[in-house]
Amino acid sequence: MATTPPTRSPELRKDPVTNRWVIFSPARAKRPSDFKSKSPENPNNNSSSCPFCIGNEHQCAPEIFRVPPDPNWKLRVIENLYPALSRKLDHPNGLNDDSSSELSGLGWVVAGFGFHDVVIETPVHSVQLSDLYPSEIGDVLIAYKRRIEQIKQFDTIKYIQVFKNHGASAGASMSHSHSQMLSLPIVPPSVSTRLNSMKEHFNQTGKCSLCQVQSKDLLINETSHFFSIAPYASSFPFEIWIIPRDHSSHFDELDNKKAVDLGGLLKLILKKMALQLNNPPFNFMIHTSPIQVTDSELPYSHWFLQIIPQLTGVGGFELGSGCYINPVFPDDAAKILRELNVPI
Amino acid sequence: MATTPPTRSPELRKDPVTNRWVIFSPARAKRPSDFKSKSPENPNNNSSSCPFCIGNEHQCAPEIFRVPPDPNWKLRVIENLYPALSRKLDHPNGLNDDSSSELSGLGWVVAGFGFHDVVIETPVHSVQLSDLYPSEIGDVLIAYKRRIEQIKQFDTIKYIQVFKNHGASAGASMSHSHSQMLSLPIVPPSVSTRLNSMKEHFNQTGKCSLCQVQSKDLLINETSHFFSIAPYASSFPFEIWIIPRDHSSHFDELDNKKAVDLGGLLKLILKKMALQLNNPPFNFMIHTSPIQVTDSELPYSHWFLQIIPQLTGVGGFELGSGCYINPVFPDDAAKILRELNVPI
Repeated sequence: MATTPPTRSPELRKDPVTNRWVIFSPARAKRPSDFKSKSPENPNNNSSSCPFCIGNEHQCAPEIFRVPPDPNWKLRVIENLYPALSRKLDHPNGLNDDSSSELSGLGWVVAGFGFHDVVIETPVHSVQLSDLYPSEIGDVLIAYKRRIEQIKQFDTIKYIQVFKNHGASAGASMSHSHSQMLSLPIVPPSVSTRLNSMKEHFNQTGKCSLCQVQSKDLLINETSHFFSIAPYASSFPFEIWIIPRDHSSHFDELDNKKAVDLGGLLKLILKKMALQLNNPPFNFMIHTSPIQVTDSELPYSHWFLQIIPQLTGVGGFELGSGCYINPVFPDDAAKILRELNVPI
Repeated sequence: MATTPPTRSPELRKDPVTNRWVIFSPARAKRPSDFKSKSPENPNNNSSSCPFCIGNEHQCAPEIFRVPPDPNWKLRVIENLYPALSRKLDHPNGLNDDSSSELSGLGWVVAGFGFHDVVIETPVHSVQLSDLYPSEIGDVLIAYKRRIEQIKQFDTIKYIQVFKNHGASAGASMSHSHSQMLSLPIVPPSVSTRLNSMKEHFNQTGKCSLCQVQSKDLLINETSHFFSIAPYASSFPFEIWIIPRDHSSHFDELDNKKAVDLGGLLKLILKKMALQLNNPPFNFMIHTSPIQVTDSELPYSHWFLQIIPQLTGVGGFELGSGCYINPVFPDDAAKILRELNVPI
């Protein structure tokens, strides 16, 4: 049972990975253990009209692959019917950022070539990702890896953002459990900032900032190959990172054994989050390295998976300054989640 | 009457001011003129329990000043009852960023000293900012300036973020029209990025990126001293910037005459936005320069006011990559708003 923490003074913290300032402001908070989602996601069980359900494959955009490759599939990777980028645009091969973008009078512009794929995580409408067995979640992770390996052949693609939106207010337009992969012709700004920040830390200390982050107070759960923490400068209340123990720059270095291990930890963390926070809408994002860059060029980079439950909105302060205000200190969030028991 | 624009290919654009990449993705859009808020803000007329209403001053946190200084005030600047930062913390004077922050084992940390003020824009509960006369909106802008001048004496304060949240889903916890000023002991990341980006443009071209931005296609409305545009790499549909014609690095250089002129343009733009977009929740932010730095040190900096109507949510892609997906090209948004007639 969590007790009321002593009142703490506000504090600004900057994370050595994201390089982002966060204001921790407990005066604005209820007790950390009282944080609950006001708009819990109730699974929509109406599957008759859902194109992601098994049997409705003809309603979807073209399939890329399915696992296993037969009518009784367990997961499918398909094109997004409303892609943010176009796979049909002409694109010159082998251009780097500098030569493929052009400066108009008003700013830089790049043709919107790219891939926007959807990973349908289960054939059954009412099943959520956290309902799957660890090995099945591992299959989803390995599907991301397999798709990344396919896209690597396009050398105009610089970065692949893997993400999941769960719940309408977290950006999900479909309630059937799925994740997305957006393959970009640029290295996005958050990735450049993160890599520069980790490089600076590495140059100053000789160490990787994520290898160093294993603080007892911030730890939630750990397995053989991964550990989960509430990060030191969490931008959002109950933000969680899952980090591989082995120093590894690219998500697609994941092997089958580690995928099952990660599947188990992801399942546990999602179950804990749903129980503690009233089944909140959430996002998760895989933060990896640019695909055309090798490990040896990035000795300071370490991939991780970030989970953000949607408990607070952002307003003009966050939009204007790029700073976040977080009412929950991460050691309080970590303690609550660490001590929580969930039936698995 | 706006007509359906021809289908356009997706495009990535990077703004020379914010240095942010945006994916313009018309395939995901309805017609630009069909964009409407799904959750319009209906003014809450229940003023009996509102502490911001005239007569309820005793329910508020302490007042800083009022205009005019008598019981029949037209606006008040007060402390925030739930401040994100504390004005009561001990704070060493005269420290710069490097020496006032300390590196813990896990990241940088700064004590949360700062001011979090509220500007009550009108004594009347049902009146919105856009209902005021241009001169009254000018008074609100001059109140920001006066408060900035007071806070400048604290040399531990590095930046003041002025912002307005209108509507619950834009972050407003009170429906009575108000804005906020958060005075920070750091220069926030968006400000550093913007200044670095403008400096780079200035060094390359010898010109200020905002002085150069006056494109006919992006123009919405203009006055003697200000012009409003849909920016070239708008992160959000119908995002609007209001920019002073004269090159000026700090908002608090605004004089009374220009404040009334800006008040008139802000009123017009807010009225147009409410009419076209079904009275959407919105945020506005003043983007200015750090307060301890003089004009002559920042020849490349030019302040502006950014308005963001809340029409689309953000999801895992935006949280992960820092890129935004915008379904409306800014020249389409500018044309619709430029050609719109509103009764003023």
